[in-house]
Amino acid sequence: MAGNKQILLAERPSGTLEASHFQLRDAPMPEAKVGEVLVRTILISLDAANRAWMQGATYREAVTAGEVMHSYSIAQVVESRADGFKPGDLVGAETGWQEYAVLSPDKVSRLPEHRPLSHLLSVLGVAGKTAYHGLIEVGAPKKGETVVVSAAGGSVGSYVGPIAKALGCRAVGVAGGPEKCQWLIDELGFDAAVDYKAPEFFKALEEACPDGIDVYYDNTGGPILEAVLFQMNQKGRIACCGAVSQYDTDAPRSPRGLPGLLVVKRIKMEGFIVSDFADKDATCEKQMLAWAESGDIKIVEDILDGLEKAPEGLVGLLAGQNRGKRMVRVAPDPE
Amino acid sequence: MAGNKQILLAERPSGTLEASHFQLRDAPMPEAKVGEVLVRTILISLDAANRAWMQGATYREAVTAGEVMHSYSIAQVVESRADGFKPGDLVGAETGWQEYAVLSPDKVSRLPEHRPLSHLLSVLGVAGKTAYHGLIEVGAPKKGETVVVSAAGGSVGSYVGPIAKALGCRAVGVAGGPEKCQWLIDELGFDAAVDYKAPEFFKALEEACPDGIDVYYDNTGGPILEAVLFQMNQKGRIACCGAVSQYDTDAPRSPRGLPGLLVVKRIKMEGFIVSDFADKDATCEKQMLAWAESGDIKIVEDILDGLEKAPEGLVGLLAGQNRGKRMVRVAPDPE
Repeated sequence: MAGNKQILLAERPSGTLEASHFQLRDAPMPEAKVGEVLVRTILISLDAANRAWMQGATYREAVTAGEVMHSYSIAQVVESRADGFKPGDLVGAETGWQEYAVLSPDKVSRLPEHRPLSHLLSVLGVAGKTAYHGLIEVGAPKKGETVVVSAAGGSVGSYVGPIAKALGCRAVGVAGGPEKCQWLIDELGFDAAVDYKAPEFFKALEEACPDGIDVYYDNTGGPILEAVLFQMNQKGRIACCGAVSQYDTDAPRSPRGLPGLLVVKRIKMEGFIVSDFADKDATCEKQMLAWAESGDIKIVEDILDGLEKAPEGLVGLLAGQNRGKRMVRVAPDPE
Repeated sequence: MAGNKQILLAERPSGTLEASHFQLRDAPMPEAKVGEVLVRTILISLDAANRAWMQGATYREAVTAGEVMHSYSIAQVVESRADGFKPGDLVGAETGWQEYAVLSPDKVSRLPEHRPLSHLLSVLGVAGKTAYHGLIEVGAPKKGETVVVSAAGGSVGSYVGPIAKALGCRAVGVAGGPEKCQWLIDELGFDAAVDYKAPEFFKALEEACPDGIDVYYDNTGGPILEAVLFQMNQKGRIACCGAVSQYDTDAPRSPRGLPGLLVVKRIKMEGFIVSDFADKDATCEKQMLAWAESGDIKIVEDILDGLEKAPEGLVGLLAGQNRGKRMVRVAPDPE
């Protein structure tokens, strides 16, 4: 009988996450009991937040050592002993890093028919929705304003810039390394891109934003947030989406100038998670598809092949190696 | 001929402000030129922000060494060589710390007839308006929620608590020392008060807020903001009014957990200044007077007598010695 390959978090990292913190294991195929469904993992979503889950409880439970690493995935029902699901159904679920998972049906949600399935993790998935809702509902940019986004080549940032452009704003990306910055401009259509690893980052950001910064879409926190705070315009808005610079360390550092700069510049800084705007998801999907068709946004995906690639894929993502939404393919798309 | 007593900022402080940073001087009586008004200072407003002005430009120009110390004051026109003003008019203006000032009429605004004039700096002035607008427009508390305010016995905080109570919230004050905390409960009607100087501050704050914190009205920044951030509820709001803990030092410290806690708790943190809400000032004044009459809010004023008291008055205010709005009387209210 077939087994179930799994990857465990063997050890909770202190400091930088490494592939050696994970362990591959062959487990027996799980069995669905009455009221449960057995699913096969097709695509695993890799996200910076995965690292934050190792630090303790956030908006969800923590991942602890010895457990199968948690993840959101696209999967297909293999066997159903629960009402409402049948073999072949495509679902989104927290399968974790394994080939098969047994789940309670209230933890499984049906996915729309769409191919390739990867779009349901990128442009039509959490990445695209996080970019769209966070920018529009929290950042609330007005035409002509300057929008800066950090981790601009990442799963979310790679949509934030093009959406800002489509809304008539100046889009400035912050990313690591000159090559990625050039790619943001050439391939994704950013007006300017600034390398946060360069020694003159603060000055380069100033030059890229000659009218100051009105909206900052923050995926990183840390020193980039600090530099932006000092260059924000009066009544600026900061959409706090994540703090990837702070996840992969046990010694996070808050930016200087808080809350003083918020007061003197009357800045609004607001955290959100994508599910806060679920009532606007349908509008978002329609608009994102329309922009993708018109070429205003480009669908950028970064798919690694094989479950065993997940550890290095996540480690690399935290180091900023991905371009666009990173995921791991565990099984082919069904026809 | 009469002179003009002035107090200069003799030296820009680095670290804690002391009375010795100021200098008293007898200057000649200034003369109004054509198009100017000569005013006599009646009441000087002392504000924590005065200290921030010494750190550099904020929402206004900086105060530099050798200048008459800046201040907002209530004054009376002595001589007018400008259209629109006549001797005897009561005005609000940036006179600075001096008995007489010559001003351009566009820097002078007429005040309503109201006695005592001190109310125009406290309950009907910037203190009351900052409390009202900041709490209602930025904090947006809902009935039954828990509102925490720092510097709760100060000019603004002493109104924030009672307004929160009047809106049906639980009001918790943070202040320095057990005596002041007891005064907040006994005299101002706070539900609870927590001494931030006590060693068990974090735990005491938790006990005072058994349902967590929904709205935080922040006058201090620093360690109090940090403690509150960790105890905020999901979707909490922080109205950033000032950062008095950070003004009186050259080494301000940002609280830990930013922006991470904003993300996981979807918190909104927003800076404001009172003039952002000038269009709602009339409603505010009417409501504040009504609450003062009904006894829902108590007018607390802390008036020092004599211009020469200004330096120690400001130093003491920064150390949290004031109770309610602190001001300096330079001349009696006219009849």
